[in-house]
Amino acid sequence: MLDEKKPAVFIEEDAPRDGLQNEPGIFSVAERIELVNALSRCGFRRIQIGAFVNPRRVPQMAQTERVFEGLDRYPGVTYSALVLNKKGLDRAVSAGLEHVSIFVSASETHSRENSSCSVDEATIAARSLIEQAKSCGLTVQAGVMNAFGCRFEGSIPPRRVLKLMEVYSESGADEVNLADTSGVAHPGQIAEMLSEIGNACELPLSLHLHDTYGFALANVYAAWNSGVNRFDACCGGLGGCPFIPGAAGNVATEDVVHLFESMGVPTGISLECMAEVVCRLEKKIGRCLPGRYARSQGFC
Amino acid sequence: MLDEKKPAVFIEEDAPRDGLQNEPGIFSVAERIELVNALSRCGFRRIQIGAFVNPRRVPQMAQTERVFEGLDRYPGVTYSALVLNKKGLDRAVSAGLEHVSIFVSASETHSRENSSCSVDEATIAARSLIEQAKSCGLTVQAGVMNAFGCRFEGSIPPRRVLKLMEVYSESGADEVNLADTSGVAHPGQIAEMLSEIGNACELPLSLHLHDTYGFALANVYAAWNSGVNRFDACCGGLGGCPFIPGAAGNVATEDVVHLFESMGVPTGISLECMAEVVCRLEKKIGRCLPGRYARSQGFC
Repeated sequence: MLDEKKPAVFIEEDAPRDGLQNEPGIFSVAERIELVNALSRCGFRRIQIGAFVNPRRVPQMAQTERVFEGLDRYPGVTYSALVLNKKGLDRAVSAGLEHVSIFVSASETHSRENSSCSVDEATIAARSLIEQAKSCGLTVQAGVMNAFGCRFEGSIPPRRVLKLMEVYSESGADEVNLADTSGVAHPGQIAEMLSEIGNACELPLSLHLHDTYGFALANVYAAWNSGVNRFDACCGGLGGCPFIPGAAGNVATEDVVHLFESMGVPTGISLECMAEVVCRLEKKIGRCLPGRYARSQGFC
Repeated sequence: MLDEKKPAVFIEEDAPRDGLQNEPGIFSVAERIELVNALSRCGFRRIQIGAFVNPRRVPQMAQTERVFEGLDRYPGVTYSALVLNKKGLDRAVSAGLEHVSIFVSASETHSRENSSCSVDEATIAARSLIEQAKSCGLTVQAGVMNAFGCRFEGSIPPRRVLKLMEVYSESGADEVNLADTSGVAHPGQIAEMLSEIGNACELPLSLHLHDTYGFALANVYAAWNSGVNRFDACCGGLGGCPFIPGAAGNVATEDVVHLFESMGVPTGISLECMAEVVCRLEKKIGRCLPGRYARSQGFC
């Protein structure tokens, strides 16, 4: 049963991409399709179904074309994918995707580790990529990885984030996403950063939060109080490194939904339906996920 | 290494009471003493060392006198205990405690389940108990269990909490504690409740939060923004029911400390020292605790 009230918060489900890409076990195309279809039935308006990246580097994300091709297309749901370069964008366009996510890291060290180029080089490449995506008629979420800090460099100066946002705005992106990729942000910092950059950007702002220290829901609350109403999340809190016990991944979607619904903010997402997805996912991967809702309500 | 800066937040450690009383394995007096001593070295200014309650009903809390007697008394640390009735208070006074916690549930159903009397009867008894404690020279934390809601009755009207606080104030209590005993509070509710009752009470206000839904750190943040700077917590997030996988107990002290220290708010508590306590505790009880700090920093 979906909430009939108009959602006041927009929650994008990222588990089929940011969750599964960190799993040691590789989901088949059919299993990935089943997961996306199940999530579509929960009421999401946007789901990141995978990434068009090098299958040798990220085998979990191979054949994202086939995932998209095999999906039941639920009305009102936008299917999104991550692309990192021209080749990835071409694949997304050929597959018929209507929305892509394009990211640059604000951390110099992480940028070189992750994409083998400096932040400046990555920014130039992203500008061109966004412009190409827009010229192909796609909508674009343009993101800043490590926007709040980095395990290599510590905190990131807001002006570096602002500079990236400016480029995104100029190149026609439809939404800016700030990602706490390392899960190091705290709510005081979220509030401060958002007050510094909030007015500088006319694009809708979304947050992508990881829960390394258990601060992610406090960060969601702080961001909501600062006027942000768009969040990425992964069902169950999937993501992170499954080989480190207790290492946390993304903030759990159902807990974000539960937080907002508790506060009387409609999300349009069915918690019961989410809990079922999480329980099936736990059975498949053979371990408990960190998300709290399903377990605290006796679903798992 | 303790922070040299004056603490701006007061965090009471409750694991030797609210943590251990929920453990299936009973800690010996020597083990309880060792835990309290280890916590004393972390920099806490108040530690709840146990409860003077019926040892047949709560065997984990038997012989709290001997725990108190055997402790190393660290300067600047107040040792506290829970008392529920005259007999418990007499035992606390005889043992030489200087501070006690006295609680009444705001939920009618929970009050009858927990203390076999109505909220009104429990309130009358608590008034008399607080007055007796004060006449014996003790300081008193007077608390409201299920102040934000209850699994039996749902949400609790703030006026019922206010009425209890009035009684506590009249009877000479030194601090009022609002306990989210069932872990059902959300940050919006915390902010709302605190704005409703904040000005009504001249006594220092502290919160005791459980983390059932993963909202506890968001609740700490919301309370801090509403002017509350006193919190109870249990190291590791001990508490709750260890027989339900994923069932959460109290908010983890080290995560509360980490949250505040990250935000630049000095706590006076050493995170490194806390992490060592948590790792030893996990080894002793043979399972991972929900607190994030020790594991995310590679201590456990």
